[in-house]
Amino acid sequence: LESLQALGFSGMLFAVNARGEAVGEWPGFRRVSEIPHEVDHVIVAIPAGAILEVLEDCARKGVRSVTVFSSGFGETGESRGRALEQEVRRWLRGRALRLIGPNCMGIYCPESGLGFRPDFPKEPGPIGFVSQSGGMTITGVLMAAARGLRFSKVISYGNEADVNSVELLDYLAQDPKTRLIWAYLEGAPHGRALVRAMEAAARTKPLLVLKGGKTESGGRAAASHTGSMAGAPQIWEGVIRKAGGLSVRTLEQMVDTSLALLWLPPCRGRRAGMVCVSGGLSVNYTDLAVQSGFEVPRLSPRLVARLREVMDLPGTSLNNPLDLAAGYFQYPAYGQLFRTLGESGEMDFIILILALEYFYLPESRYPGISRALVQAFLEAGRDCKLPFCVVMPQVQEDPRQKEFEKKFAAARIPVFPSMERALEALRGWMKWWERRRSGTSSP
Amino acid sequence: LESLQALGFSGMLFAVNARGEAVGEWPGFRRVSEIPHEVDHVIVAIPAGAILEVLEDCARKGVRSVTVFSSGFGETGESRGRALEQEVRRWLRGRALRLIGPNCMGIYCPESGLGFRPDFPKEPGPIGFVSQSGGMTITGVLMAAARGLRFSKVISYGNEADVNSVELLDYLAQDPKTRLIWAYLEGAPHGRALVRAMEAAARTKPLLVLKGGKTESGGRAAASHTGSMAGAPQIWEGVIRKAGGLSVRTLEQMVDTSLALLWLPPCRGRRAGMVCVSGGLSVNYTDLAVQSGFEVPRLSPRLVARLREVMDLPGTSLNNPLDLAAGYFQYPAYGQLFRTLGESGEMDFIILILALEYFYLPESRYPGISRALVQAFLEAGRDCKLPFCVVMPQVQEDPRQKEFEKKFAAARIPVFPSMERALEALRGWMKWWERRRSGTSSP
Repeated sequence: LESLQALGFSGMLFAVNARGEAVGEWPGFRRVSEIPHEVDHVIVAIPAGAILEVLEDCARKGVRSVTVFSSGFGETGESRGRALEQEVRRWLRGRALRLIGPNCMGIYCPESGLGFRPDFPKEPGPIGFVSQSGGMTITGVLMAAARGLRFSKVISYGNEADVNSVELLDYLAQDPKTRLIWAYLEGAPHGRALVRAMEAAARTKPLLVLKGGKTESGGRAAASHTGSMAGAPQIWEGVIRKAGGLSVRTLEQMVDTSLALLWLPPCRGRRAGMVCVSGGLSVNYTDLAVQSGFEVPRLSPRLVARLREVMDLPGTSLNNPLDLAAGYFQYPAYGQLFRTLGESGEMDFIILILALEYFYLPESRYPGISRALVQAFLEAGRDCKLPFCVVMPQVQEDPRQKEFEKKFAAARIPVFPSMERALEALRGWMKWWERRRSGTSSP
Repeated sequence: LESLQALGFSGMLFAVNARGEAVGEWPGFRRVSEIPHEVDHVIVAIPAGAILEVLEDCARKGVRSVTVFSSGFGETGESRGRALEQEVRRWLRGRALRLIGPNCMGIYCPESGLGFRPDFPKEPGPIGFVSQSGGMTITGVLMAAARGLRFSKVISYGNEADVNSVELLDYLAQDPKTRLIWAYLEGAPHGRALVRAMEAAARTKPLLVLKGGKTESGGRAAASHTGSMAGAPQIWEGVIRKAGGLSVRTLEQMVDTSLALLWLPPCRGRRAGMVCVSGGLSVNYTDLAVQSGFEVPRLSPRLVARLREVMDLPGTSLNNPLDLAAGYFQYPAYGQLFRTLGESGEMDFIILILALEYFYLPESRYPGISRALVQAFLEAGRDCKLPFCVVMPQVQEDPRQKEFEKKFAAARIPVFPSMERALEALRGWMKWWERRRSGTSSP
């Protein structure tokens, strides 16, 4: 109830409980069937044993959809829970009532003010998320939200006693408000249908899949979590790739890759241009980029000469990586510098390495200059006609870090907390667009 | 001068400059030779062209060691800079004066108050760091410091015109205040001697090596950075491993692995015990652990029964991963729970997954309870007789995150910002102890 209130749900809400007591401002009833209004949806959070009684009551009232939060079903691995889940499945057969769960968090749909955490964002966004795990849903939504991403519809579906991952994927594939899909899957009771649904989804929009329980031990953990069976890791990787989806290993990678796919224009090639404010990291980062499958091409003498017209200071290394060194004080020149790189045709995207530890000295001499530098980088990157993103390595505790991240996020410029995470995200972005260019959904 | 002051340098300091002007509280002189005291060390930061004049003056004064910050030598790739560096090398031959650099940041030694950044920690610690790159030195020291690590001696040695990586490694290998060595290398002008020095160092203490310029493009970047030549990536990996060192890819991995090596007791095996406050991530994290070469063994029925005596609540999954679920409110029982795991003989170390997004609800009901939970976890982990570390995934902006991290760091319990980074660190820790157990420095 608190979550629905926090997310601005504007419909009527009723608190049904054994004593029929009101909860806060919400009127109470002992049964759903006693509510003197039409009821669209019921969220059930009672001990598992009482489930059928509540479902019967909902059916009597003409309720069409129910979310069952309660656990204590198939996921327990015990015969009692399994039998109960079987009974629910049997009961549902042939009825108009549809059920999400049990053992799930249910629906988060900011557009209608539906949700299960008061700290989820109120504004909707382009990501649709189907997730077997409630915990992965909560962590995933919050992790993405902190980076500036928002969601269209999120469904934590748990044991999928009725509504299943296939239907949910099909729904998100055709939902015009969803531009990118996340799927966290543990089991796959509908193997072939699931693959077909992944293929259909990936044809329309980027599909990122995190498979939980790929290993035997992980599968055992999954079994006690949602009662699902696991497959072999390589099989899953292959199935996801073949369906045209991007297989990710972690929620961090899910979020990072989504930033690249949603905020960057299409990827046209693998040539990275790197700009940094100190040469130290650039050697190491060039190695990482090359080892991730990118190129960091040497610039032509003609381009170097043009850059030298824009900025020429001792210590500055005008090549790729471009080490601004003392030149990062010359921020009025950033615009022309990035424009020159952007029009050169010698790179396909630009990564700015913003190592805040080099802002210490200028800031101590000229308080406030860091903000001016970051604003200049932001405008130069945004206007340079190439996909542009920022790596802000996490070094010191610095309150400006979050402030700058948010500034870039507000301009829809992806910021990554490490070069490795940036490269992983850019690889996903590159793969997706390579497939699109080659006209097939599978690479 | 500011850095030396900030780090508490207690010796005499003199500001030598063209006009012999005092700088702040420090008396000024036009030449080193005019200083009316003995001079132990000179830090040179003048244009490259004037270097020999200054060195002659230092020699006249009887100075024994010099750090040359100035760039404009071999690293420029231009004949003038190269010739100048050759002249310096020739000039040094047969003299008592030793030179660090040029093109370097020089020495950070908190014990003597020497350093080149006012924001470096004043307290010394167990890490010795030799680094060809000044930038990698600054970023590395600050990144480690923010995680609670401290340094014995740090030397950014640049173009190694005189003092070289081999001598520095040899020094750190025998330095009793250094318990673990970091090396950031770009070139290897003393190939065989360097391998020998790495072997000698790795026999005495853990040696972590980050090689910059492993790829061709990275090598090109390195050439314009410190004038170094690169090798092939696989050759370097092999050389480092064969010498008994741990090859790392990033500074993040360097810091993470050091936390494990310095703060955890010896690794006795690869069986991970995982404890989490929500099951969501635990399936995914089990997969990651297994794919990183660890085991996440199922607990014996006997151990599960013993755990059930300590804690038995609905939703709690008493196996491995151990999902506390609602049981994380029962924090007075943590001590016994962790003791039971620690004495079981069924795992070799414990990873606690502390997902702060699950602290939202308890904290909103019982303000301050998060601190009590964290304190209870800290004490339970510290006292459980197994190596114990914490993963605190970075999800939401939460001021408690830093506070809790510092609390664990103060108790010398490693905290990692993601499961992947924890596993990478623990792999290094495991490899190091596997080699020690097998009695060879190379695996």
